Amino acid sequence: MLALLCSSGRLTLQRDYPQPSPQAGDALVRVTLAGICATDLEIVKGYVPDFSGVLGHEFVGVVVEAADPSWVGRRVVGSINIGCQACDTCYQNGPEHCPNRRVLGIHHQDGVFAEYVAVPLRNLHRVSDDIPDERAVFTEPLSAALRIREQLAIRPSAKTAVIGPGRLGLLVAQVLHLAGEEITLLGRRRDSLALPASWGMSTGLPTDFPANSFDFVVEATGNDAGLAEALRLVRPLGNLVLKSTFAGSSQVDLTKIVVAEITVTGSRCGPFAPALRLLAGETLHTKPLITAEYPLAEAEAAFARAAQPGVLKVLLRP
Amino acid sequence: MLALLCSSGRLTLQRDYPQPSPQAGDALVRVTLAGICATDLEIVKGYVPDFSGVLGHEFVGVVVEAADPSWVGRRVVGSINIGCQACDTCYQNGPEHCPNRRVLGIHHQDGVFAEYVAVPLRNLHRVSDDIPDERAVFTEPLSAALRIREQLAIRPSAKTAVIGPGRLGLLVAQVLHLAGEEITLLGRRRDSLALPASWGMSTGLPTDFPANSFDFVVEATGNDAGLAEALRLVRPLGNLVLKSTFAGSSQVDLTKIVVAEITVTGSRCGPFAPALRLLAGETLHTKPLITAEYPLAEAEAAFARAAQPGVLKVLLRP
Repeated sequence: MLALLCSSGRLTLQRDYPQPSPQAGDALVRVTLAGICATDLEIVKGYVPDFSGVLGHEFVGVVVEAADPSWVGRRVVGSINIGCQACDTCYQNGPEHCPNRRVLGIHHQDGVFAEYVAVPLRNLHRVSDDIPDERAVFTEPLSAALRIREQLAIRPSAKTAVIGPGRLGLLVAQVLHLAGEEITLLGRRRDSLALPASWGMSTGLPTDFPANSFDFVVEATGNDAGLAEALRLVRPLGNLVLKSTFAGSSQVDLTKIVVAEITVTGSRCGPFAPALRLLAGETLHTKPLITAEYPLAEAEAAFARAAQPGVLKVLLRP
Repeated sequence: MLALLCSSGRLTLQRDYPQPSPQAGDALVRVTLAGICATDLEIVKGYVPDFSGVLGHEFVGVVVEAADPSWVGRRVVGSINIGCQACDTCYQNGPEHCPNRRVLGIHHQDGVFAEYVAVPLRNLHRVSDDIPDERAVFTEPLSAALRIREQLAIRPSAKTAVIGPGRLGLLVAQVLHLAGEEITLLGRRRDSLALPASWGMSTGLPTDFPANSFDFVVEATGNDAGLAEALRLVRPLGNLVLKSTFAGSSQVDLTKIVVAEITVTGSRCGPFAPALRLLAGETLHTKPLITAEYPLAEAEAAFARAAQPGVLKVLLRP
């Protein structure tokens, strides 16, 4: 089958990659649409040095093979962490933090930038007919945005800033905005803020605001400068959520964290069911988040496009 | 009066420093005993470049002058943050994070390494007769240790590590231990761990433990190496509390914070009333935390002693 492989940060499109053989409990899924995420771009830059295999983890597809035949033909999305189901972490917290986990297209498990992918049935969620593929493909990043509200009780009155109007930041901002928050979307270039402004959100450059302007700040830029701005902007006793994965270590002003008693929370994967409920409704914008779609055969061009500044979601169709 | 001044990080003992003139609402307190804290040592190293005045904030004393005469003659301790009482932060959260606050011996307010100090009456707490001065002088750092339990609901079953068996770490460890936690006190030198071991706590070097060994980690070393160890030792979904003030910024591995969804909480000043309740009982050890006592006239020697490795609390008697 056609598959996009990544090894030591090098992308290779392979035409004759072997179709996955489902293990016990797996479904074989024909991928119909997949999305390129910032983590994929980081992996190509070397963020997960030991990854070698099919890249990609955001997908929608159709089950073509499963032990339980009632799944065959169903349109599905899938969560990406595959736990060992034998350790305390799996028992207590599920697969997301299992020390032996595999992660679709990220860690010891072939991903979704391919014609077919094998995924445990327990990771799959059915997609209702009223959610088209171009919308369902946002389930995984939308669940990651919802994760923040799983972790923290965010007061709807909290003055909130999301820094980084990119793929993930725009989903985070919407998720908080729909829940009643007063959102300000901050970015380094004013032209990147036109979209959230069109949704009725406040927007600005970080430098438009004095220190300690926000009760709650979500850092979604993925760079050190964004983090420094986030720390500057959060008020004493405020909350800062780190939503993007950074490669390596960063300079952080710990003095402010201690003296102003800031709480910093790392946030990663989230719940699929509420993401699918939001996608089944009409309030969440996904269409304007799609910059381009490429056939999988042109994946290298798609990656080059996705890495350009101001580009939002780039989709791959196998 | 005799006072220890600090300006641009230089200590000067002055014999004829003017006695403070209490403002409206202030009490004049004769200091009977004061303690040197890591923050004082950091200020001498330049942590608060703009501080100029009498150093010191941990004290016990006797009220000699107050608008309300019922306070005169009372033995007192005092909280250190003096808010403006006019801003939203003061109204909502008290003085600790008031943007206009003065802080005893730290920020725009003369401190306690002197014969007399002026402190707002509202900052004072009466000390009961059964708490001797040598014990009451721990009220402020003990309240800082208790602050952690004001901020976080710590499960008594949480496997907990306190890194840094110093002045503050030993109080933090005791506060958590008394509340039922399983505590491991970690330090770089085994001889610094004899005291907590004698209290029945587990002890060890950070390198004795694999990554992700603890649910809850308190960083009380005040150095970057301690922070890196703390991050290594906290498990996914765990809590890390930063309890010591660092000068400048530090290298932090943000990848772990995000991927393992760690919550990092800065923690500073705490509540005096429960600290005084603990000091009135017999379960909390303070005597073995006192390394030495010097007359205020020998404050420079006291500071040199307090800066040596392995030295715990050094007291100053005016």
